[in-house]
Amino acid sequence: MPTFMDVHREMHGLTAAALTEVHRADLAIESDEQVHFERVWADPETGHLFCLSEGPSREAVMRVHARAGHPTSEVYEVALSI
Amino acid sequence: MPTFMDVHREMHGLTAAALTEVHRADLAIESDEQVHFERVWADPETGHLFCLSEGPSREAVMRVHARAGHPTSEVYEVALSI
Repeated sequence: MPTFMDVHREMHGLTAAALTEVHRADLAIESDEQVHFERVWADPETGHLFCLSEGPSREAVMRVHARAGHPTSEVYEVALSI
Repeated sequence: MPTFMDVHREMHGLTAAALTEVHRADLAIESDEQVHFERVWADPETGHLFCLSEGPSREAVMRVHARAGHPTSEVYEVALSI
């Protein structure tokens, strides 16, 4: 299954509780698209959020995020990693 | 020690061997800045590279990358993670 990193840029002021809720919303529906969100990192100051996932396609990752209420078009297939 | 995610956008066509070399170049000098690069993910198709590190400051991370030959100004302090 390919691995993806996606980027959100409008999460200014995100709290730990809000991040937990964002992630929970993805986890609640991800299996509909055979996606799994593994990790998430947030910079509340600049509003950046990075999500690491596995799934069948970029579009599947985008659909989960969109349905969960935080759409992004910035989804990159990270074919290489260390 | 704060955690950082940084983004490079000009790594088109990166191979696994080239990614290993990019990461090795960071690891070779990171201790000069009390930085440690933990993980790296690359999308050779769009040229995106994401690096996860720990260190004392954004500037320290930027200095390591610059000296290693792949500078970026996109370094985000990811204060929250899951």
